[in-house]
Parts: sequence; structure tokens; C-alpha cells
Amino acid sequence: MDEKSSPIITALIQGKDTKGIIATITSWIFDNSGNIVYLDQHTDPVEDMFFMRIRWDMDGFQVPREELDEEFGRVCWRLGMAHRLFFSDKRMRVAIMVSKQGHCLLDLLYRWRSQQLEIDLPCIISNHDELKDMAGYYNIPFHHLPVTRETKPEQEKKAMDILRKEKVDTIVLARYMQILTPKLVNAYRNSIINIHHSFLPAFIGADPYLQAFKRGVKIIGATSHYVTEELDQGPIIYQDVVPVTHRDNVETLKRKGEDIEKMVLARSVAMHVENRVLIHNGKTVIFGG
Amino acid sequence: MDEKSSPIITALIQGKDTKGIIATITSWIFDNSGNIVYLDQHTDPVEDMFFMRIRWDMDGFQVPREELDEEFGRVCWRLGMAHRLFFSDKRMRVAIMVSKQGHCLLDLLYRWRSQQLEIDLPCIISNHDELKDMAGYYNIPFHHLPVTRETKPEQEKKAMDILRKEKVDTIVLARYMQILTPKLVNAYRNSIINIHHSFLPAFIGADPYLQAFKRGVKIIGATSHYVTEELDQGPIIYQDVVPVTHRDNVETLKRKGEDIEKMVLARSVAMHVENRVLIHNGKTVIFGG
Amino acid sequence: MDEKSSPIITALIQGKDTKGIIATITSWIFDNSGNIVYLDQHTDPVEDMFFMRIRWDMDGFQVPREELDEEFGRVCWRLGMAHRLFFSDKRMRVAIMVSKQGHCLLDLLYRWRSQQLEIDLPCIISNHDELKDMAGYYNIPFHHLPVTRETKPEQEKKAMDILRKEKVDTIVLARYMQILTPKLVNAYRNSIINIHHSFLPAFIGADPYLQAFKRGVKIIGATSHYVTEELDQGPIIYQDVVPVTHRDNVETLKRKGEDIEKMVLARSVAMHVENRVLIHNGKTVIFGG
Amino acid sequence: MDEKSSPIITALIQGKDTKGIIATITSWIFDNSGNIVYLDQHTDPVEDMFFMRIRWDMDGFQVPREELDEEFGRVCWRLGMAHRLFFSDKRMRVAIMVSKQGHCLLDLLYRWRSQQLEIDLPCIISNHDELKDMAGYYNIPFHHLPVTRETKPEQEKKAMDILRKEKVDTIVLARYMQILTPKLVNAYRNSIINIHHSFLPAFIGADPYLQAFKRGVKIIGATSHYVTEELDQGPIIYQDVVPVTHRDNVETLKRKGEDIEKMVLARSVAMHVENRVLIHNGKTVIFGG
Repeated sequence: MDEKSSPIITALIQGKDTKGIIATITSWIFDNSGNIVYLDQHTDPVEDMFFMRIRWDMDGFQVPREELDEEFGRVCWRLGMAHRLFFSDKRMRVAIMVSKQGHCLLDLLYRWRSQQLEIDLPCIISNHDELKDMAGYYNIPFHHLPVTRETKPEQEKKAMDILRKEKVDTIVLARYMQILTPKLVNAYRNSIINIHHSFLPAFIGADPYLQAFKRGVKIIGATSHYVTEELDQGPIIYQDVVPVTHRDNVETLKRKGEDIEKMVLARSVAMHVENRVLIHNGKTVIFGG
Repeated sequence: MDEKSSPIITALIQGKDTKGIIATITSWIFDNSGNIVYLDQHTDPVEDMFFMRIRWDMDGFQVPREELDEEFGRVCWRLGMAHRLFFSDKRMRVAIMVSKQGHCLLDLLYRWRSQQLEIDLPCIISNHDELKDMAGYYNIPFHHLPVTRETKPEQEKKAMDILRKEKVDTIVLARYMQILTPKLVNAYRNSIINIHHSFLPAFIGADPYLQAFKRGVKIIGATSHYVTEELDQGPIIYQDVVPVTHRDNVETLKRKGEDIEKMVLARSVAMHVENRVLIHNGKTVIFGG
Repeated sequence: MDEKSSPIITALIQGKDTKGIIATITSWIFDNSGNIVYLDQHTDPVEDMFFMRIRWDMDGFQVPREELDEEFGRVCWRLGMAHRLFFSDKRMRVAIMVSKQGHCLLDLLYRWRSQQLEIDLPCIISNHDELKDMAGYYNIPFHHLPVTRETKPEQEKKAMDILRKEKVDTIVLARYMQILTPKLVNAYRNSIINIHHSFLPAFIGADPYLQAFKRGVKIIGATSHYVTEELDQGPIIYQDVVPVTHRDNVETLKRKGEDIEKMVLARSVAMHVENRVLIHNGKTVIFGG
Repeated sequence: MDEKSSPIITALIQGKDTKGIIATITSWIFDNSGNIVYLDQHTDPVEDMFFMRIRWDMDGFQVPREELDEEFGRVCWRLGMAHRLFFSDKRMRVAIMVSKQGHCLLDLLYRWRSQQLEIDLPCIISNHDELKDMAGYYNIPFHHLPVTRETKPEQEKKAMDILRKEKVDTIVLARYMQILTPKLVNAYRNSIINIHHSFLPAFIGADPYLQAFKRGVKIIGATSHYVTEELDQGPIIYQDVVPVTHRDNVETLKRKGEDIEKMVLARSVAMHVENRVLIHNGKTVIFGG
């Protein structure tokens, strides 16, 4: 998409709402010869918070790339706003963690290879080895780190070494059936995306399809969210559902669910890597694509 | 729909699964010169239960109407099956209970008047009087029975007197914001339909839109279910959802929710009065229309 | 919503894309002490067009209301942008035209009375009198203007007199089964909203449910669009669909369709009266609420 | 699913409606000690046609497998009904034809390998070689038959030789961008499933996403249908849609469309291979799973 020589900047900004934020920032960009190609903002009157996503073209921009973060940061600081900058020519580095089920992994790999997902994929980590072949077909290094209650801290430490070595920004749990330790969760705060196979907050925890079957619901769902220390309580990114009937058993619920799991996960990974997600107070602000 | 002189019979049958149920029943109908116009069945292998809905034309049927229940009942009894019969020329008598919000009531009234819902509507009961005019416009008797903690048993008794006098089969709680007493619930077992403004089992109890707002979900829903003694735990009839975003506040969630509440309630009332719903073990079997 | 003493301004802006539009406009607002409460924009790279919706609070704004259009217009003019301004304390005046079917009309009336739709409703015009009572219940003047091929020009002239007298901004065709003359269409360019009972461009013209039945589609839809001289070819505002099956006949398709017709129409009327729609080249840009 | 030693029979029956069909057939099964595990039927009052899908267990069934078709056929013949029988231990043999885009193929291959789709996959035929590797990874023979206007009849003859040699029942066009000749279409009447990337009948023919973009629709869709001689006019099996906005360009429409194309195709292939589809008069009857 952004195949020009000069990259596009994406800035995310958030903080207490105050007058003049948009004017100040857009004027600063304009005064430095930037061409704004996208702006979306959201004001939360309950929290009195302001959120903005703004993108501009670096072509002819008068602030050099290496000074940009400092200069832009100063503007934001004066407004009391936190900020982050992303360059379109620098891809996010994403690690995928999986267990045995491959539907979400395969879906991500296909989108990655067909360049729908513009990310780097330096590694796949699994507590099983069923999906080693799939990773191999796509030439992604596959790290098999089996986990027992005893070996968990040790194996997760190995995982963290890999993540660090590979300069991973974002971890996608593509049906990884282990609960991460607080240590890992905190090291990748707001950067670990999980897919839960229910429409949260319904059916938290294990076996949501069995729970759904027992309750006799007429829709099942899937929810992607950022991982926090509390199980299935993190900020929700995206959700979708599919209708089911009395004819469905746990097995067919699983199959129908898989189709939305992979879709919901893929869409939320796209939202995340396109820097369209802001997080505040346990909830997400998702800007349009 | 069934405007011929001879009515259509709808039979609902359920019981432990056994060989020959369909053959026995369809042969009995055929041997008595009945023309089957609909048959749907469901076998639940987990519960080992059999469910069937079958409809046939009374035109030329050799068992007289007044003997039908006994004769058909004998056939079902031998198969170990429970049964119920409904005649297309006999409408269900439905009472609607409401509080202040009229969107569900108005929707039901419109469908009733335009004959989409083929029911009798002998009364509307409310603990408030806001919707008296609406009932008046449609010429439905409106009973205002205000409820306080103290007067609840007494007022509900009055309600039950009205229901009995009006020969009501089915009660629709079209956003009635009072919890019914076990006495009323038991008197109309499997015959009270409630609309809950969330996708159950998420957000049970009060203020589901506020709960949804706080959790930051990306879809909200509505659920219709039969009322049981446990709050919001009855068999689910129908559910639907609508996507929401970070821009929604509690007020806009309510508005978006109202649109699906009335749709979900109307559809489940139609399913019920068309005798398409069977209940077993806290869950529903819903046959196609 | 905007119940403060000082209103909110909504500005719609569109024109050829150029550098500095957002900066110029937001700075002008900021320099005049306006507090921006909403901004969304869209750049169409194919058409090289820029579209913006921006809202700010008039509280303490230094340009007096009566000079606002001229002052703001000058800013836009220099950028080569067309503009329109709307004040939150001035409601749109909407006329509804209907024929015999009342589901869309009733839905709009309910939303109007419950203040979900913040509009003035000075008149309902119909070529039949079936819905006179419904209008009466809501105390809206009802004009019965029966139309034959011969009387059409004359009757439409009467309709236009009423619309002019009532200072109507927007006409909603809530299942009005007559084709408007070019004269009326041109007089209310981009201001007449129609609901078509199919997912356009499928099933243009008469009897879309019959067409859908014959084709054996598995979904049916509804489409709202602005009326242009070419039948069913105007800019699409909103669409929705509902699944159907082989069990549906033309009659049940109609019923299922009605439910989405009224929803689609209501949502698009809301989009229009909230000034969220821009039109360019036969297509709409719809900004978020 | 049907992993017992004795298979399940699925019978599809259709013909002019008459009294006693269900009774006759279910009694015949019962009298021969068959246990009916599924029955669904549909009566089309417009066409006066009867359709039935019935499944029973061969365990202890008194008609030997090799005589079943003749015996059951005799029962159907007397009722004036056409019939087909399928045994759960005999898988359909499906050939997939593709061009360059792999999303539908990959989805089918994954479902096949994970045994969600219980079919044999003896060959993939393509007019390009881009997807050879993907076929290779799943160990499916890949036949590259490039097609030009001149070579089309000759290459299609080769394809038909392969199909015949591999005893293929069903052909799935998983985004095969060539129009088949009438010869091939007729040889596999009602057995070639195509995915068209629009909600038919909208946007028939080439480049439906470009057509959708130009028209400015707010939903796009995908349609699976049986291939007939008339382009995109065959009986529709399944359709689904996804909402889009003014922000979408042709490229993003394609991506969003791909997600529903593969889902719609996979579901309709499942419906077909589970023998749930009956065809009459250019339309399908789809029985529940």
C-alpha cells in the first residue's frame, strides 16, 4: 500500500481532553509541509479523554525522520498528550503462539504470505509439535517448548529469550491453550492478542463450546482481546457471532466457531498492526481503516 | 394462512427415542385419510430424546375433531411419547405485560393488527400507565396494576384473575421490569416469554447496557427466553446481536438494543404461537416455519 | 442530546483535495475560541476529493451566529471547498410520503415521538387514505392526494405547495409507491430518501420480493438511497439483509423484508438528519455518529 | 461421524406431491427394521412438489445393501417419486478447479485434512501453476492445463479424461476464472459448484468488486451456485454478505470479499457432500444438517 519512497507516519495520541489539540497538531504538521492523509479522533465525555489517529506523508516533510519523535513529542507534551509514532516502512514483528489446533495459524500465515497482513513473522512458538509442518511449509522458524506445571516458568523464560532475540513487538495467541505468567504479560503489556472462543463476557474460561451447548444459546461467538493478568478480562478488540440451532452438538459448535475465531483474530491483528487501536481504562478505541 | 374451512392440526410430540415413531404416527394419519403438510423431527443423541412437529389437513380426516386428542393420544402413549395438539382455527390468547417502554409493545401490536401475528390479544397489564394510550389506540383493554414491594402479591393476584378470566394461554413480557413471583411463573410454566436486553448468559440482571458499556464489548444483543424461577436462566428461544463501537454510550447502546429487542421478541412470539417450540432440559428445540 | 444553551455547529465540507485543509479549518475554529467536539474526514484518492465533517461548540465562540456562514464560507472558499453549516438547535423539517403499507411510517413516528429522531414532522402526504388514522394518533397533518396517471402532475403540484408552505427540507418516501416527477426530484435534490425493498442493484423496479422468490436467493435485503431521476439508481445510504430459505414464499419474504425495510430507512433518516452524509459522483460518504 | 460398522443411508426423494408419501416410506423402513435417524421434508405448494431427505441406520436392516436401490426405488416409483441413495461409508469424490487465487482452495484443503469435509480429493486442475505448491503440500495430484481461446476445447477434454479416470462425482470451482463449455457442464449437471464473488443476481459477470465499488453499495456478498449453461444463473446454494463503507477501495473490497467467498463455498460444498441439497426448477431446497 505504502510503496512510495517516502513513508507515511501514523501518530496515536491520547490524554485528557482540552481545547485546541487538533488545531495545534494539524497546524504543526501543515507548517512543516506535511500532507495529512488521514485523521480520526474520539472524545470520551465520560472519561473526559481525547484520542486521535493522524497520518501524514513524509514526502517533503521538514522535520527529519530521526528528530521526528522528539519534535512531535514536544508538541504533544505541551498539550498533555501521550503519543506514539509508526512509520509505514517499518513492519511490526509478530510472534505467533499456538497449541494443537491450526485453523487460526493457517489463516494468519496465508494472509501474511498473500501480503494482506504486512508484518514480519520471525517465529512460531508452540507447546506441542503438531503444527511444525505447517510452519515449515511457510518457512517460519518453529520453536517447540512443551510445558508442564513444573517446566512452565523455565519454558516461558526460553520463549521470552526468543521473543527478545527476534525483537518481537506483538504476540498473537492463535489458540494457545496455556495461561501466560504475569511476567510475560507485563513484558508485552497491550501487545498480546488472544482469541477466546466465546462472545465474552459469556463463557469465560475453559470449554466455552461445551458451556454454550449446555446453556442452549442460539448464537455462539468469538472475541479477540489484549491479554491482561485477569483471565479473559482484557480490553476487547473485536467480536463476531454465528447462529446455531438445537441440531448443533459440541462438535459442530466447534467447527462453526472455528470459522469466526480465525476471522475475528485476523481482523484484530490487522487493526493492531495498522496502529488503529488505542487502549484506555480496560477498553479499546478502534479507528477506521 | 389457514383460511380453508377445514383446519390444519399441529401435533408436538416428545419422549425417549425408540424405533418406529415416525412410521407409526405417519401411518396412523395416512390410514385415517390425513394429508401431512409438514413434518420435522429432531433426535438428541446425548439425551436420547425424540422430538417431532407434524401437521396435517383435517379435510376428510376420519377421526372426528372431538375424539382426536384421545385417539392420537393413545397412539403416542403406546410409543411412550408426550403430545399436544393445536388447531389452526383456534388462536392462542396472549396477554402482554409492560412497564414504561413501548417499543416492544408497539411492535407486537402492529404485527397483530396487520395479521402477521395470528393471536387474540385480550389484555395488556402494566405496573405503570404510560402506555395506556397506545393500548387504547389499538382497542386493547389496559389494566393498570402499580406494584410496590408491599402490594406485589396482591397486585399479581389481580393480574392472575384477569389472565384466568380472559383464558390467557401465553404471557409476553414486553419489557416488564418486575420479577414475577414463583406462583405466577408456575401457573404459566413454559408459557411466559421474556425479552432480556443482552445476549445471555452475558450481563444477567439489571442494567445490561450499562454493564456492556463498562466491559467495552463490540456487540450487544437481545435474548428471548421462557421464564423460570431462576432469573434469566430459562430456555432460550431466540437471540440476535448488533455491532457497536467505542463511540457508543449507554444511551445509544439502548437505542440500538431496542431495535433488536423488539425483533427478537416478535420472532420468538411467532415461533411460540405457531407451535414450533419444544422444551427439554432447559433448552429449546425450534422447528422451521 | 445538545441541550445546552449554546448550540453545536456541524460543518460539512467537500472539494478537490489540497494540503492544509484540516490545519486551516481547525486553526480558524481554535483561533475563534471554538471547542472541536468531533472531526472525521475522508480522502478519496481515485477522485482526488476531500470530505470532512467537523463539529464545534458555539459556547464562547467569537464569530457571532449571524456572521458564521459568511466567515466560515470565506475560509472554505479560499481552500476551494464547498460547505454547509447546521446548528444543533435547528431541527430539520421532514415530510413523509406513504401509500398503503404502514410499517415504515409507524416506525418513524415512534422514533420521532420517543425523540430518537430529532426532527420536525409537519406533514404526511399519501396517495391513499389507509394511514390517515395512524397519522391522526400522532397528531401529524395528513394530506390525502390520490394520484392517477392523469392527475399526477396536478396532485404533485399540490404536494409541492404543501412542502413549500411547511418549509420542508427533507422528504422521506416510506414505501410511497409512485415514481416522482423530475420536477419534484430536482427541487429536493439529495434530499429525498427512498427505501427500496431489495439489496440494490439486484431486483430493480417492481415486485422485488417476487423477483427474489423466482430467483431462489438465500438472502433478501433492503436499500435506502437518495432519489434521482433514474429509478433506483441514486446514491445508496444504507443496506441490510436477512437470510431466507426454500420454505419462504412471497408472503413470508415480504414480512421478513418489512423488518429490515423499516430498520434501514430509520437508520438512513438518522444519518441524514444528523448531517452525516456527503454525496459525490453518485455515491455517499457516511461519517460515524 | 458415522464411524459404526454399519453405515447410515441417506435418501433424497422428490416428485409431485401426493397423499401418503411419508407414511409409505417410513413404514417400509420400519417394516424392514430400519431406525430412522433423520427426516426432513418440504412441500412446495406453488409447484405442487414434495421433497424429502430421510436417513436410517443399516444396522439390522433387512434389505441387503446390494438390493437396496432396487427395492427402495420400487417403493418410490409407485409414489411417482424420483430418488437417490447415499451410503455414509462411501465418500464423494471431488475435483477442485482453480486459477491463481488460493484462498478458497486452501480453505477447502484445510477442512479436508482436518476431516471437517469428509470427501475424497483425487485431483486439482488449474489453468495456471501458481497453486501447484499448495496442492503439493497437501499431496493432491495437480494437473496444469493452461487454456487459451484456441486450446480450450482440447484442454477441457483432457480435464474430462482426468475427471472420468478419477471417478469424480462433484467439481468445485474454487475461483476458476474460465467459463466451462456446455459439454462439461452437461456431463456434470447439478454437480459443479461455483463461487461467484457477488450477491447474485447483482453484479453478474466480470469484476463484480469493481462494479460494486462504482455503484457505491454498502454491503458486498458472495454466492455459491450450481453451474448451468447460462452464466451465473444456476440454482443458488448459499449466500453471505459483509458490510463495507466509503473507505473501501476495490482492493479492500476484494480482501473482505475473499473472507466470505471461502466461507460460502466451504459451507455449500458441505451441504452438497452431505446430500442436503435438492434442485427443482432452477432453485434449491437445502435441508438442515
